[in-house]
Amino acid sequence: MTTFHDVPVFPRGFSCASRNCGIKATGKDLSLFVSEVDAAAAAVFTRNHFPGAPVLLGRETIRGGVLRAVIVNSRVSNVGTGDEGLANARRMAAAAAAEVGCDPGRVLVSSTGVIGLPLPIDKIEKGVRGMTADLRSDPLVGAEGIMTTDTYPKAVSLSVGDATITAVAKGAGMIAPNMATMLVYIFTDARVAADRLDALLRAAVDDTFNMLSVDTDTSTSDTCAILANGLAGDVPESTFAEALHAICERTTELLARDGEGATKLLRVRVKGAASDRDARMVARSLVDSPLIKTMAYGADPNVGRVLMAIGKCFDARVEPARTAAWINGAQVIENGMRAHFDEAALRESLAGDPVEIEVDLGVGSARARAWGCDLTEGYIKENAAYYSS
Amino acid sequence: MTTFHDVPVFPRGFSCASRNCGIKATGKDLSLFVSEVDAAAAAVFTRNHFPGAPVLLGRETIRGGVLRAVIVNSRVSNVGTGDEGLANARRMAAAAAAEVGCDPGRVLVSSTGVIGLPLPIDKIEKGVRGMTADLRSDPLVGAEGIMTTDTYPKAVSLSVGDATITAVAKGAGMIAPNMATMLVYIFTDARVAADRLDALLRAAVDDTFNMLSVDTDTSTSDTCAILANGLAGDVPESTFAEALHAICERTTELLARDGEGATKLLRVRVKGAASDRDARMVARSLVDSPLIKTMAYGADPNVGRVLMAIGKCFDARVEPARTAAWINGAQVIENGMRAHFDEAALRESLAGDPVEIEVDLGVGSARARAWGCDLTEGYIKENAAYYSS
Repeated sequence: MTTFHDVPVFPRGFSCASRNCGIKATGKDLSLFVSEVDAAAAAVFTRNHFPGAPVLLGRETIRGGVLRAVIVNSRVSNVGTGDEGLANARRMAAAAAAEVGCDPGRVLVSSTGVIGLPLPIDKIEKGVRGMTADLRSDPLVGAEGIMTTDTYPKAVSLSVGDATITAVAKGAGMIAPNMATMLVYIFTDARVAADRLDALLRAAVDDTFNMLSVDTDTSTSDTCAILANGLAGDVPESTFAEALHAICERTTELLARDGEGATKLLRVRVKGAASDRDARMVARSLVDSPLIKTMAYGADPNVGRVLMAIGKCFDARVEPARTAAWINGAQVIENGMRAHFDEAALRESLAGDPVEIEVDLGVGSARARAWGCDLTEGYIKENAAYYSS
Repeated sequence: MTTFHDVPVFPRGFSCASRNCGIKATGKDLSLFVSEVDAAAAAVFTRNHFPGAPVLLGRETIRGGVLRAVIVNSRVSNVGTGDEGLANARRMAAAAAAEVGCDPGRVLVSSTGVIGLPLPIDKIEKGVRGMTADLRSDPLVGAEGIMTTDTYPKAVSLSVGDATITAVAKGAGMIAPNMATMLVYIFTDARVAADRLDALLRAAVDDTFNMLSVDTDTSTSDTCAILANGLAGDVPESTFAEALHAICERTTELLARDGEGATKLLRVRVKGAASDRDARMVARSLVDSPLIKTMAYGADPNVGRVLMAIGKCFDARVEPARTAAWINGAQVIENGMRAHFDEAALRESLAGDPVEIEVDLGVGSARARAWGCDLTEGYIKENAAYYSS
């Protein structure tokens, strides 16, 4: 059984600090996460062809399977910056390692923000000095320093046996399925070997973060890492896997609900699909569709759009006469046709949060879930001037 | 040589009429297009799994390869309406055939608008009576009756030798590549056999309408049909093909520029790709990306997003060090990195219309083009209450 904490806490041996080092005019822009002892570690990164320098370095670092610290800056992503960018990422790891007192190969580096600008490495090197004196046991302190367009810091933790698992995350835009999404750091004091950690992380990410879409755009910086320092001893692997899945799912919903400009969470379940691939394709099509997203925003019961979004999955097996769908529990599609439903009641339920869409393709037994958010004027406003603001 | 007309005209033997038959509270909602004589005909339809009843009937009708008339209503799309919908589509064809004096098998039917509502067939049957008395030689009259969220009626014509080709189109949302998009009717007095017409239409559509995206959502009603009545005699096939391509491209731009809420046209060219498939994938990724679209809207020179949108084409061959890109002629990406460019000048040029993005992948010789529009608050407003408004 996994129990979420009302207020996030760190597992034994983990702490964090954050501050403004001058990259942003105001607000925290640098976070440091530290484990007192070496932690087994695994990570997944973006599949974008133009990974940022921190992702290139991170792939190298994570091969060691051990981390002591994570250093992250916001506002500038160090992407599209070539050899100089990579050298700057290494300097950032070295600066954090010197502060923590560990090998630079045990520091994971991330940068998030505008693509293509040079990393202000001098500010970061100065900023990281003395940060260990600020270390706190509140994960939200670290979450604050990694925010870009997020409207609130994101951290969540749960108990699993004697151990704790805590996730710290950021991300509100340029988020799309099919990769390791966004910046997510998961900390646990459970003892798990690095190779098992890698397998468990990939399995959990595949069904949670990889099924999240804010805007179909895939970031060049996406990173999800897990650090297990073992201070709480062993936890049965199946119990740990279940807890890890639960915290990834909760974090996915946290991110979806804070999608740029979003006013509500979108949850989609697909069942009765011919294959996992089909189920995932249809689930993603629904959370990606601007017309489904604006329907949720406007609470407009234009349910024919559900047919449209299923039907545009050309490569999935869809038999119109077997297709059914529900919105917030009300059946809106039956045998591939609009069902009879109480339109006023649906309009009212669509105005709430979350909006849940369930689809039964009726041709098999595969299932999938996906998460997203509505599409509002806020997304446009945010992104029409993100670079300049 | 193809010459576009300043004001669209019909080819010899074609005419049209439109009126309000009571489906919309105000505004034209029914259009009839007629050829005086039998016209060779071809058509392509949506690939959505839930095609509307008119599309199901249209696939049957077009097998004959001959049309005399096209009848189209707006506001209700007759999609997701089952057997009753199909019966209503047949009644609509029969009503138009009785008015024109031809076989119902020579009438193409289209319906466009909200998905899932029953077609008000009684109103249409009454409305079509007497329409032949209103027939006019102005294609814009017919274009008016098929509008939904379009802000202006769309028709364009050009001369090719002694013949004329005229396209009448509608479409502003639920428009995505990879199918026959929207409603487009092309009329010509050139003499072309139905089987050649089909081949020429598919080739032209593939490089124009199929590379247009307003919002990545694929309609359930998309139809593109061509009618050639032969009254102007033969035109060399290669000349005709070139003219057909030109009018499809011009119409594609007309549709893109009037995308829901759009303030500007987006043109993308990709060259140097390893394959046609890669070139098309990257071109589409750029016109589909909400972050590219909002950058164009906000005239915000956040050029790193170009890297992001190329890089998220996981299955395309992309070599960062060989990748270059230009916006409105200014090089913004060089060797996979942000190039040095005059940011103020780019900001100014981004504020104009159109915005042209060119990408050189540097790994081959394949090319592709795609068309789209910016993403604005207007799209949200339009689609958050489309059903109810």
